[in-house]
Amino acid sequence: MTENSEQPSKRKARKQKKFKPKARTPRGFRDMAGAELQLQNHMLQTISQVYEAYGFAALDTSAFEYADALGKFLPDDNRPNEGVFALEDDDGQWMSLRYDLTAPLARYVAEHYDRLPKPLRRYQFGPVWRNEKPGPGRYRQFMQIDADTVGATNQAADAEICMMAADCMEALGIERGDYLVRINNRKIMDGLLEAIGLDPQAEDFDSRRLTILRAMDKYDRLGLNGVTALLGEGRKDESGDFTKGAGLDAAQIDKVAQMVSISANDRTSALQGMAALVKDTESGKQGLHELVEMAALFTKLGYQADRLAIDPSVVRGLGYYTGPVYEIELTFKAEDEDGELARFGSVGGGGRYDDLVKRFKGVEIPATGISIGVSRLAAALTLLGKGDGAEPAPLVVVTVMDKETRPDLMVLVADLRAAGLRAEVYMGDSAMKAQLRYADSRGARLVVIEGEDERAAGVVTLK
Amino acid sequence: MTENSEQPSKRKARKQKKFKPKARTPRGFRDMAGAELQLQNHMLQTISQVYEAYGFAALDTSAFEYADALGKFLPDDNRPNEGVFALEDDDGQWMSLRYDLTAPLARYVAEHYDRLPKPLRRYQFGPVWRNEKPGPGRYRQFMQIDADTVGATNQAADAEICMMAADCMEALGIERGDYLVRINNRKIMDGLLEAIGLDPQAEDFDSRRLTILRAMDKYDRLGLNGVTALLGEGRKDESGDFTKGAGLDAAQIDKVAQMVSISANDRTSALQGMAALVKDTESGKQGLHELVEMAALFTKLGYQADRLAIDPSVVRGLGYYTGPVYEIELTFKAEDEDGELARFGSVGGGGRYDDLVKRFKGVEIPATGISIGVSRLAAALTLLGKGDGAEPAPLVVVTVMDKETRPDLMVLVADLRAAGLRAEVYMGDSAMKAQLRYADSRGARLVVIEGEDERAAGVVTLK
Repeated sequence: MTENSEQPSKRKARKQKKFKPKARTPRGFRDMAGAELQLQNHMLQTISQVYEAYGFAALDTSAFEYADALGKFLPDDNRPNEGVFALEDDDGQWMSLRYDLTAPLARYVAEHYDRLPKPLRRYQFGPVWRNEKPGPGRYRQFMQIDADTVGATNQAADAEICMMAADCMEALGIERGDYLVRINNRKIMDGLLEAIGLDPQAEDFDSRRLTILRAMDKYDRLGLNGVTALLGEGRKDESGDFTKGAGLDAAQIDKVAQMVSISANDRTSALQGMAALVKDTESGKQGLHELVEMAALFTKLGYQADRLAIDPSVVRGLGYYTGPVYEIELTFKAEDEDGELARFGSVGGGGRYDDLVKRFKGVEIPATGISIGVSRLAAALTLLGKGDGAEPAPLVVVTVMDKETRPDLMVLVADLRAAGLRAEVYMGDSAMKAQLRYADSRGARLVVIEGEDERAAGVVTLK
Repeated sequence: MTENSEQPSKRKARKQKKFKPKARTPRGFRDMAGAELQLQNHMLQTISQVYEAYGFAALDTSAFEYADALGKFLPDDNRPNEGVFALEDDDGQWMSLRYDLTAPLARYVAEHYDRLPKPLRRYQFGPVWRNEKPGPGRYRQFMQIDADTVGATNQAADAEICMMAADCMEALGIERGDYLVRINNRKIMDGLLEAIGLDPQAEDFDSRRLTILRAMDKYDRLGLNGVTALLGEGRKDESGDFTKGAGLDAAQIDKVAQMVSISANDRTSALQGMAALVKDTESGKQGLHELVEMAALFTKLGYQADRLAIDPSVVRGLGYYTGPVYEIELTFKAEDEDGELARFGSVGGGGRYDDLVKRFKGVEIPATGISIGVSRLAAALTLLGKGDGAEPAPLVVVTVMDKETRPDLMVLVADLRAAGLRAEVYMGDSAMKAQLRYADSRGARLVVIEGEDERAAGVVTLK
């Protein structure tokens, strides 16, 4: 009995010892390897080189920031500490993984302000983390590459970043016509709201402003009728869901609709159209002046509207922007794996955010910058057939017929390497068939087989 | 009164609105910029190229793993889920940031085993996170670059990685004689414990084994007397702290002392010395056989003991190793900033870990690999004066005397860029003195000043 009663607990102990965790990537995260990773690294290098050529210098901040330093500036969200991965340190302070590379920059500038060059021109790439619901192609960790100029108020800094964005696309092999940097200015939006008589002191101003901007942002997808509905009573979509509108009257709706319908084909006429709608407002005039300055620089430096367009339907998130905003869009259409026509839309963007550093310093430190989302851009390059530029040197796999010869083959392979090739001796212990399968799965350009006859004759067979 | 009673809460609301977080890097984390970051990126690229040449292919896993997948294999620690940054996902699952790149590899191999080439040869670099007490030069996030061969049982795979480690050091400009890869085998350690009569079934075997290995590991620092004390009753250090010893008897201590005193100068005599101490034990014989095989390959491929040494005092952490272990040591001495003589010691290492994937799969999948700690290596390269190889193209800063001319200067700078230079127009609005200071702080090689006279004459002044 005593023995029997001990048995189950012993068995249990053994069972616990043999606990086998399931090997799986955490929900919403992924591994990257092979051609996809090569392409990503190639893109990061290419964009870095463009940023470097413009005089931006690399910065790498840590993955963590104190939660209070990240603040409530999460784009698309506007809720403090939601959407981030946060944990409490053993000294009771809350840290969060960065959700973008802009908030850490603001902290960095505020922390080191006195010893930094002014303006500070830094670029940075690295993963960012968003604690959101994952979906197909929507991961909770992804790669961004940013460039920002901090400490310059003038529009040359904004214009330069837009031109640099265009340069990045072309450096990646995306041809003119297949991308477009669309540019607007937040101050013009504010001018428009003022021009249609919205009272900034009104209780519901913020929420109405948000509803109007969101409606304008949907012009691309919903067209003028959809936007008009969202500006007025609201809109029922195909699934029957109703979205409450901004409740504007007909005259107001008409002006906002005029704004989003302005064609982006020609910068001068786009600016004229915008001017007609906001000209009497202070912030509208200021925003227009800034865009006019930028457009003049674009023209001077040879960037036409087929690369850099003025487009009033660009709203660019709902976060911290205070002046010019810009969005990089891929405009080509391509069939995806399922034969569906894919349109890529935005692969990055940015704008001026003069208030972000102010949170820490109390004083305003102007800043403007861009963020490029590498993963979506990589998918686009692959569809464009531009994903192959990143291929490494050809790989040679040397098979092993007889283990005794491996040392000689390792000498051979060291010579191939010294000649600049990638080369390896098969390191497993399987038979030739498995070795050839291995060489195949590695994408080897050349397979070297040394058999007995070959060894006797001092030659190798190439496959 | 009513008005007065409302005042404080209004004031409070305004105060809360003006909350200014302190801008600071989280405790134990840091930013990296300038020459330091350039050097790190250069090193990652150089080591990646060596790994690539050997046929290792890049992999990038996500920062998070499920906590159960990381398991209790944290090196130096052996305690489950301590020393890591962990958080609970909204579905109740615990995730941890990776503390090394080996545990994620084990998970990756187990998850994708059927579709992976066998052996799998992958390299990976990226930050790892340790939730430890930070100290001077000791950060809670740092960069590693690993290479592993998974699925090869033979010692050619281990030997290859040791030779590749030596190649990495030389590719970085560290000269022969300034580094040493020291190699041992865990099975020989087990053989030694068996040879001195330790009973693996004894209750206190694990803790005594640990104490003995830790004592051997200290041979470098404490010398033979220190190790002898730690093997016997124990040792009082200079501060008066007493470390309890392993409690071995004189004959046992003598054999362990003989083992650690074996000179690493000559591989053949080192192997003979080890053989004399463990030859009668099964695992000792097995370990020796493996080292002999590796040494033969080193000799065949021209790597002498000044690069790859057999050294019985290498213990290499206390974690998951099952066979050959290796450690990359920098052997040159250099003065640090304070004029102190600095010895760098280990900048990386690794070994065979045949059990790590077994946790997930149940079956043993052999693996051997190396991990290089980039930060410590970077500090060493800087002291060696080898840190400059990473310099980017020279930077040209063009100053702005009169804002009206900025567009023309931006055209000039675009031309310089097209000619392969890094070039920028000063983007701030400060006076010339501040602009020159800016150019200086950016490390500009060339400063372009266009004044009125120059503009009239169509020339620029170079400084």
